[in-house]
Parts: sequence; C-alpha cells; structure tokens
Amino acid sequence: MSEYPAVITLCHQARQAAAILAHIPTAEKNRALHAMADVLWKERAAILAANQADLEAARAAGLSEAMLDRLMLNEKRLQGILNDLRQVSELPDPAGELMEEKILPNGLHLRKVRVPLGVLAVIYEARPNVTVDVAGLALKSGNCVILRGGSETIRSNRALAAAIQHGLQGTNIPREAIQLIEDTDRQRVLELLQQDQTVDLVLPRGGASLHEFCRQNSRIPVVTGGMGICHLYVDASADLERALPVIENAKVQRPSVCNALDTVLVHPAVAERFLPKLVEKLRADGVTFRADPEACRILLPQCADCVLPAGEQDFDTEWLSLVLGLKVVVNVTEAIEHIAAHSTGHSDGILAHDPEAIREFVEKVDSAAVYVNASTRFTDGAQMGLGAEIAVSTQRLHARGPMGLRELTTYKWIIEGDYSVRG
Amino acid sequence: MSEYPAVITLCHQARQAAAILAHIPTAEKNRALHAMADVLWKERAAILAANQADLEAARAAGLSEAMLDRLMLNEKRLQGILNDLRQVSELPDPAGELMEEKILPNGLHLRKVRVPLGVLAVIYEARPNVTVDVAGLALKSGNCVILRGGSETIRSNRALAAAIQHGLQGTNIPREAIQLIEDTDRQRVLELLQQDQTVDLVLPRGGASLHEFCRQNSRIPVVTGGMGICHLYVDASADLERALPVIENAKVQRPSVCNALDTVLVHPAVAERFLPKLVEKLRADGVTFRADPEACRILLPQCADCVLPAGEQDFDTEWLSLVLGLKVVVNVTEAIEHIAAHSTGHSDGILAHDPEAIREFVEKVDSAAVYVNASTRFTDGAQMGLGAEIAVSTQRLHARGPMGLRELTTYKWIIEGDYSVRG
Repeated sequence: MSEYPAVITLCHQARQAAAILAHIPTAEKNRALHAMADVLWKERAAILAANQADLEAARAAGLSEAMLDRLMLNEKRLQGILNDLRQVSELPDPAGELMEEKILPNGLHLRKVRVPLGVLAVIYEARPNVTVDVAGLALKSGNCVILRGGSETIRSNRALAAAIQHGLQGTNIPREAIQLIEDTDRQRVLELLQQDQTVDLVLPRGGASLHEFCRQNSRIPVVTGGMGICHLYVDASADLERALPVIENAKVQRPSVCNALDTVLVHPAVAERFLPKLVEKLRADGVTFRADPEACRILLPQCADCVLPAGEQDFDTEWLSLVLGLKVVVNVTEAIEHIAAHSTGHSDGILAHDPEAIREFVEKVDSAAVYVNASTRFTDGAQMGLGAEIAVSTQRLHARGPMGLRELTTYKWIIEGDYSVRG
Repeated sequence: MSEYPAVITLCHQARQAAAILAHIPTAEKNRALHAMADVLWKERAAILAANQADLEAARAAGLSEAMLDRLMLNEKRLQGILNDLRQVSELPDPAGELMEEKILPNGLHLRKVRVPLGVLAVIYEARPNVTVDVAGLALKSGNCVILRGGSETIRSNRALAAAIQHGLQGTNIPREAIQLIEDTDRQRVLELLQQDQTVDLVLPRGGASLHEFCRQNSRIPVVTGGMGICHLYVDASADLERALPVIENAKVQRPSVCNALDTVLVHPAVAERFLPKLVEKLRADGVTFRADPEACRILLPQCADCVLPAGEQDFDTEWLSLVLGLKVVVNVTEAIEHIAAHSTGHSDGILAHDPEAIREFVEKVDSAAVYVNASTRFTDGAQMGLGAEIAVSTQRLHARGPMGLRELTTYKWIIEGDYSVRG
C-alpha cells in the first residue's frame, strides 16, 4: 500500500470541488490567486529548501547543467512566478461568458454560455514553475486540476502545492481544487489516465514520448501539442534583405522552444543570392545548417565550416537548438507539399510579396498558425492576445494553437420556454 | 488476406482527398450533394435489392421486428433520405468562416478562420440512412469520412456508398472523400481506431457498449454521446396544469430517442396533487412508472396497474421506451443533486415560476442542455437552429450537445506582418 492517497480518491475529491469552484464569483477567484501568491512567498524558505534537495539529488543522478538550470528556483525566479500568478487575476474570466443568444421562431429563448471544463489533469516534466502557472490558470477558469510533475522536482512540487493549498484556506474554494499526485511511481500516471469518470481533459506537457504515452493509454480526452517542426518559405517575391532578420529571430531568439524555426525553404530564383547571405548572418549567431543537395551545391565548399548535407531524418527533426535545415524547392506549391509532409502543424510561414503565392500558401498550409512575413515566434498565448497560455495544441479537436483561459472551457445551452412542447 | 482494401489504405486515401476537399468552393460542394442524390435515386433498384437481402438475412438471424423496421428501406424512405441530403446543400458552409479578427499593438494582423477537421470516422449500427446523412454532412463541411456500418446493413451500405461515389464522379471531389469499410470483421474497427496519423475524429453512433469500446481502444479523439438519462423537475411554483403536457411530450412523443424523458422529480408541496394527475394522463399513453418510496406512498395501491416500486438501477436507466421514473425530492437543491448523480449530462429541465429556484437550477445543473419550462425533446440540431445534426455530444471537449456542421470544423490562425520579429 502506498503512503499516499489513491489517485482515484484525489480525482473524486477534485470532481466534488469542481461543482463548487464552477460557481465561485470572479472576484473571489481573483482574491484566491493573490492569497496563493502571498502564501507561496511567505513559505519561500521551505520551497527553496525543497528545491535545493531536488537539485542535489539531480546532480547526484548526473543530470545535465541545462536540466539543473530548468529545475532550479531562487527568490528572484519565485518572484517572477508569483508576478505571473498575480497577473492571471487581471485576465478576463471566461466562465459565464454569453457566447450566443437567439430566440427561435417557436419562442424558445436559447443561450450558449461558457462553463469550466471541470477537472484537468496536467502531466509535466522538470520545471517547477508549471505547478504554479497551471494552478493559477485552472483556478481562474473555474477548473480543478490534478498535477503530476516529474520525479526530479517532487520535493519542490510538494512544497509548492502545500503552499497553494494553504493559500486557499482563507477562501471559499476547497483545497481539493488543486491536488498534487505525490507518489512518483509511473503506475500512478496510468491510473490517472483511466479516471474518465472524474477527469475531463489530460494535458501532457513534455517530450514526444510523454504525449505518445498519454495518447496510447488514456481513456480521457488528451490535447497533445507543444512540438513544432516549423518552416519559413522564402518566395522569389520576398524582400531578401528584410527576410534575413525574420529568419534570424525565428531561429535564434529562443531556439529551445516549440515555435522556433527548424527549416527554411527557398525558391530557386533567389536561392543563389539568398542562401550565402543567410548562412553568413546566422553563422555569426552560432547556427549550423543541414542542407539539401541543391543548397549544398550553392553553399559548399565555401561554407563547409557550418553546413552539412542533410541526413534522412533531418527535415523531420524538431531541433530545439541552433541547427537549421535548408532546402531549395521549385515553387510555392512544392513548399506547401514539403510542409504538409514534414510539419507538425504548429507554425509555418511565407516571406513574399506576390499576392498569388501568399494566397495559395495561406489557403493550403494547414497549421495552427500560418504566417505571412512574420517570425514563427509569435505563436504564443500572450503574444497573440489570448492572455496566459497553458499549452499549445497541435491537434485539431477542441482547441488549436495557443490555449488560454477560454480554451479551458466548454459551454452549456440554456433553453427557456413557456411550457413549450415539440410539435 | 482480406479481399478488401486495408483500413490503413482507405484512411490514407481519405487524408489525401481531404487536402483537396478542404479547398473546394461551396457551390461545387452543393452541386456534388445534388449529384449524389440524383445517382442514389437512379440506382434505387440496386439499393433496395441489397436492402432486401439484408432484411432476409436479418430475419433469418432472428432480429426483432423493431430492428427489421430500422433496417428497412423503401422508395418512400429513400426519397426522404435524399430530400434531407438536398437540404444540406441549403445550409451555410462553415468552412472559411471568419471567427475572429484583430490587429495587435505591434501591427500583426490576426485572423481566426474556420477549417474542416479533415477526416472523420463514423462507426454506427443498424440504420442505413446514417450512411447517406453522414456522407452529406461531412462533404458539406469539407470533411472526408470513413464509414463503418453494422454487419446487418452491409449490403445496403455497399450499394449506398457505391452510388455516392458514382455521384462524385462528375465533380472535382475525389471519390476517396467518402469511403466505406466493406469488411465486417470487428478487427477492422480496432484497426480504424489506431489510424491517428490520418483520422482526426471518431464518432461512434450506437449503444453504450460501442461508445465504451471506442473510448477504450482509440488513439484518435472520440466524441461520445447520444445517451440521455433526462430529467424534468416539477417545482412547487410550477403551473401544474401546464406542466402535464410538457412531461407528456418529453416522454411520449418519441420514447426511443436520447432526448426523451426518463425521470420526473417532484417537490413535496405539490407531489400529492400532481403525481396522481400525471399518472392518469400518461397511463392513457401506455406509460408505466417506477416510483420511489414516497411516490409509491402517494400512488399505491390506487395506481397499481401501472406503478411499480423503483428498483435499484431504475434511476440510472435510459428507458428508450414508455417507462418513466418518479421521485419526490425535498427541494430544488435535492433535485439538482439527484441530476448530478444520475444524469448523463444530455438534457435536464425545471418546470417552475419561482425565479430563485430557476436561477439555482440553471446555474448548477451542468448538462449540455438545461431547460426552463420546456420539453427535453428540443435537444436536436434542427430544433435548435444548428442545421442538420451528425451526433449529440455528452462529453465536454470540443462540442457539447447537438453537433451540426460547425462542430465538424476546427480553425487556423492566419497572422500577417511586415517582416515582423518578436522583441
């Protein structure tokens, strides 16, 4: 027997809390967000000590410096997390929003009203900030949440979740609204994925294998995403000088995230002029390149220091680092075909002035975000004006692209009649 | 080896067809709907002969008369189905609809545009009309569809699907847009549920075990629904005379469908007066009752001809027949609690005049359709002005309640800049 409460118990408690949380007024939810932030700050010594213990265990286990950095909390980082949490209280509350209203010819009065989804399960890795971010977004949208973090942050997550629940104590919101699965046995994830009687949505946040695991094993609907093999196509009609900083921004500004650029496709009429300039500019940022045969013909041997021939899998790789694929395509149609074959449907764009090329690209590229003359880095809830973001969906059902508070809701129909019967 | 094409092949063909169908203009899709209807009528002899063979096999297998009736096609029924198909051409095309548009402070121009989901898989039982209905709704919304009907209608479905594909021949729409899995081996359903690389949504249409099977085995998102344990609560403030025909309509008009009434909850202040009147009225329609102890106290022994004490499972049963549960609850709050415990979240309503009771009921009952002084029978795409209906979702993700053409779409973000970079 585990020393921790059973997963099914946590989920049942969350379901009961959801029936209460769904009817808590916005002002009270906002007050709770501030109370959570206050207590998290008050309990920072315990949180940072727990994080220190996580870091020591991770170092002993041989985790990389990059992983240790993702794991690490300090007062400044905690302050940033709490500022974000307080910001969530400023966002509009989606629950209760009137989406549609109509009077039918038979006199029935229909309203379509937004309501919280209910209970979310978020399964994530490494970063302890996710614990607080997700708790805040769930609470603001009226949803309860079951949190399941990675074993390497379990001590931090326990301390954070405890402080969050302490923060709820002075409010009308049950502490069971936000629950952490403390048992790090992977079997608990499998159990969680079976709770379709109490959990409405599973959000995995992590690598491809976590998403695949959830999709394979879940009885609950899963929204997968967060993986982007992103493309920019440079048309013959593009302003080549202005295209360079857009590609640089998309590749270099933050290469480790899902909306970072992975492949540049170039029209043959401009490839000879453009590719050497592109390599020259991005080489200075530390970028290395994987080029198709035609791009190799143009770039080699002059750029052999940073250009390699592309291997078989390279155009199907999300680099998450300073590597960029290069390919010469015969025209916009071949660019669209390449994107259809290799994109994950996250963010893909065209750099062009020819309205016909732009029209074809925008119509036929079927990604969550399709760009014209802009960096792929804008695919982000805050950048796109959706408020904070809980995930980026690359599936088609329910929500696509950045998921903010609204994307954590469903709706109900309220139908008022005058003792109306169907004829 | 099966003599039929592999499921994975059908799905790949549908995926390729989807890339074409998504860009077919509305007028061309409407023309195709009429062409399909014309050919279905032209080939009616083959269709009705195939249906006759299905009927004979079903009769030999000992299927009930009710089942045989659901299976049966004749010229008149076919005409009705084709009229519905032609009607779909009159509905607005959701694909391409502009859902949202904004200019961000940084000058980016955002548009959120509706696009088809892509490839649907519809798994259904008995009724051959579903083959044509679903094909029409999928095509109109720009979606390809893989149809998998029941083995008892396989001959009818083959003839219908062949005629539908013949109807597409004179259009720009690939015949692979609408495909039937002809192999009736149940293993094919399992294979279909694994095709998450090519299929975007699974819609089961049938009994609880089919929904459970899909939910258990699918790697593709499933929208389940179509099961309704529906309630009406008669408050002390209701107009009792006017309440009777509403309950009668909800229970009797079409008892075999999912929005038919299953349980009446009654406030104790009116139970003594109301229940005998209700039983008297609905007994004349052939309704029998399953009553809780308090309703039994009121109704027995006078109404022993049609009232039985409710068994343990009776309030968790979707009757789909002329049976009605009766229960006296202490107040609106207990009615809400009973509904939370026993409803499938399909359609539940209150009959009342007290605004406070109505407010509490509407706020706290969390069903796809919540009624005030109206029959539950209005939960229907056509009745609610959504156009035709492909399914009724009782889950919370993506769509809730009746699913029309819009609910078969997703969206993409189109973001136009001026060589814009993220700061």
